[in-house]
Amino acid sequence: MSEVLLNHINRYVELDEGIAQEIAAFFSTLKLQKRQVILEEGSVCNQLFFVSKGCLRLYYLDDKGVEQTIQFALETWWMTDIDAFNKKGKSSYSIQALENSEVVAISKDDWTLLLEKFPELEKYFRQIYERAYAASLFRIKLFRLSKEEFYHLFRDSYPGFIQRIPQKILASFLGFTPEYLSELRKKNESK
Amino acid sequence: MSEVLLNHINRYVELDEGIAQEIAAFFSTLKLQKRQVILEEGSVCNQLFFVSKGCLRLYYLDDKGVEQTIQFALETWWMTDIDAFNKKGKSSYSIQALENSEVVAISKDDWTLLLEKFPELEKYFRQIYERAYAASLFRIKLFRLSKEEFYHLFRDSYPGFIQRIPQKILASFLGFTPEYLSELRKKNESK
Repeated sequence: MSEVLLNHINRYVELDEGIAQEIAAFFSTLKLQKRQVILEEGSVCNQLFFVSKGCLRLYYLDDKGVEQTIQFALETWWMTDIDAFNKKGKSSYSIQALENSEVVAISKDDWTLLLEKFPELEKYFRQIYERAYAASLFRIKLFRLSKEEFYHLFRDSYPGFIQRIPQKILASFLGFTPEYLSELRKKNESK
Repeated sequence: MSEVLLNHINRYVELDEGIAQEIAAFFSTLKLQKRQVILEEGSVCNQLFFVSKGCLRLYYLDDKGVEQTIQFALETWWMTDIDAFNKKGKSSYSIQALENSEVVAISKDDWTLLLEKFPELEKYFRQIYERAYAASLFRIKLFRLSKEEFYHLFRDSYPGFIQRIPQKILASFLGFTPEYLSELRKKNESK
């Protein structure tokens, strides 16, 4: 299992070496190819993923069959369809690697066991969900901005990130057409 | 302190009677008048609120001085500016009671102490934030719907709630003008 995850947990909760190894045994590491899908919309969602390297996206197909990206996960972010994972239900989203990536995965049953055996991890996951909740609240606020303001704020908040994502997917996340995003970029480059 | 909170905690974590009373001592109960503001945008956010009766809303003033409502909290929901609360920073939002309400409040320092003293509550708050995160993710997905679809889905998901909120505030939450909401309602009543 990735050292990245153990280091990340240690930032929130102090683990001694023995416990760290026991915790590590609950997880498996997956190496993903760029564009590989690790959760398919409509299939049972039974895994929680932690990105140790690379980038994932969460998306769904709308009524018109167009992919709508609603979230990204970079290094040290967790990702799943949280609602489906909790209920072991069918996922409303797909998850795909946007780059060659490495993720650490745990099944719902193992996650439940892990938290029972190491309740000190509740503090870690409480803070993870707190952060995820705060980020999505901020995202909701951003929807009230004009499209151009939203683009600038997103670009300034995650400057390196915009270069890493295919333009079509970035446009979908921002709620733009690819043509509109391309116009915005040209306009800003020429400034 | 409100029995509603203790009952709610007990749904997630089993507390024995002695502990329940010690936990209760960390909270204070506030009775709020309709329209009373308990957190002002720009002031330091030092409290986390649990609604035991009534309804709160979270909102901010946009560039044009218009109030934008981005979240509601009904009975058994928690509310604060989570980011500002964690940093003890200035709030980006105001919180107001929409009805005569009763809330249970805890300061940031007391909350930190509470979790240190009763780490079993980490599991409770982990699930609270998990739920809040799942709800805001669903909210983000709803933004992709047409305005009319969004209204119907919201109305069908929270049938009693729509009657409780002033129309102007509901319109702001849905991202509509009050005139558009009024038209939609008339159109649906006449069906």
